[in-house]
Amino acid sequence: MRFTARTSSDGVVEREFTVGDVPGVLWSPASGAERAPLVLMGHGGGMHKKAPGMVGRAHRIVADCGFHVAAVDAPGHGERPRTAVDERETAALRQAMAAGEPVGPIIIRYNAHLAERAVPEWRAVLDALQELPEIDGPVGYFGPNMGTAIGVPLTAAEPRITAAVFGLFWHDSLTEAAGRITVPIEFVLQWDDEHIPRRSGLALFDAFASKEKTLHANSGGHLDLPRFEVDSAVRFFARHLGH
Amino acid sequence: MRFTARTSSDGVVEREFTVGDVPGVLWSPASGAERAPLVLMGHGGGMHKKAPGMVGRAHRIVADCGFHVAAVDAPGHGERPRTAVDERETAALRQAMAAGEPVGPIIIRYNAHLAERAVPEWRAVLDALQELPEIDGPVGYFGPNMGTAIGVPLTAAEPRITAAVFGLFWHDSLTEAAGRITVPIEFVLQWDDEHIPRRSGLALFDAFASKEKTLHANSGGHLDLPRFEVDSAVRFFARHLGH
Repeated sequence: MRFTARTSSDGVVEREFTVGDVPGVLWSPASGAERAPLVLMGHGGGMHKKAPGMVGRAHRIVADCGFHVAAVDAPGHGERPRTAVDERETAALRQAMAAGEPVGPIIIRYNAHLAERAVPEWRAVLDALQELPEIDGPVGYFGPNMGTAIGVPLTAAEPRITAAVFGLFWHDSLTEAAGRITVPIEFVLQWDDEHIPRRSGLALFDAFASKEKTLHANSGGHLDLPRFEVDSAVRFFARHLGH
Repeated sequence: MRFTARTSSDGVVEREFTVGDVPGVLWSPASGAERAPLVLMGHGGGMHKKAPGMVGRAHRIVADCGFHVAAVDAPGHGERPRTAVDERETAALRQAMAAGEPVGPIIIRYNAHLAERAVPEWRAVLDALQELPEIDGPVGYFGPNMGTAIGVPLTAAEPRITAAVFGLFWHDSLTEAAGRITVPIEFVLQWDDEHIPRRSGLALFDAFASKEKTLHANSGGHLDLPRFEVDSAVRFFARHLGH
């Protein structure tokens, strides 16, 4: 693990790092407990580790909970090179959108492919992060959209993750992995999602084997997730990762 | 409106009152703004206006939001006389429970009957409460279970109610009234409810015409509603009735 840059604002220290060829960012409290839990954060499709929504959520978790937050660029995203598959699938997605055709089949297929590449990367990044003296205790995962396509198989494979916020994804490719997850889950779904059929979102929530799981379904379309759901996620992590 | 008793604890003034022959209770901040919004609270079946859960929720809203909270005994409940219908329906309910038979049909039928008696009472109580100089601004309604069976037709009929928390009820008798409600709604549902089919709860949530509505579905049975849903309801009212 190599730190490449460090800035600080509003009581949050932001350090960029690489683990192998995976670039990441770690947000930490400028002051606080000597050792604190960690939340891994997955970004959406076409986004990257430092998209504005990611930075905003990270600052909220650091400020309100005193936890560390880490994000990486997913394969084919952000600073990372695109493979032939990345180029082909993003072209297919753009074409479907322009033609007003369903994007679901492409996103489900492409994100399942990305998850296969991303899960071992995340596990190596988590290994490296847990070597830092300031990181200790339980680990959370926070990521709707593509963050869920990657986070569900990651959480199913990774016993160190003990609480997760998922949502806004189809059930098709994730039902099996969700059935192996038993940690507490908060799951967001848009009731009038123009891309993800309501039944598919409900089926994914239903698939989690977790004894404790909460569905937050809000009226509105795919992009209308209310801002208060971030507040709710922050409280969820405070409840499950805090002392 | 006649006040019959007054006590005070933890910064909350509790006054019992009657409006006609309806007994009620009003919880108010011992100190705070000169005039504040009001939340009407409906109790569950077999409960009464001062059941422990009611008092706890009222204190939370008064303490956290500085609002007033009012509850009344529903017809046939608490201090109120039982009619022949009340006696017959509660006997039928006890019998069904003892026999392990479905309680849904009886509760749906009996609570629809109670709502017809309760809605005009609530409106008269609201008239009286709004004459108090310390009550001003928007009005909320908070009540799962039988509180929803009464609260949905009340909110549909009552333009003064501008935000409501409902849940834990069947859709059958309430779909039509829910379709006339357009104010923001938070709706709780138990994913593994042994009495209310999941489909029925989802259908009721779907029926609200509200542009802004949120479903909170939690794993667990009918009685397992997590305590953090009260926190969420308190924040919902702070958001919608606060300044």
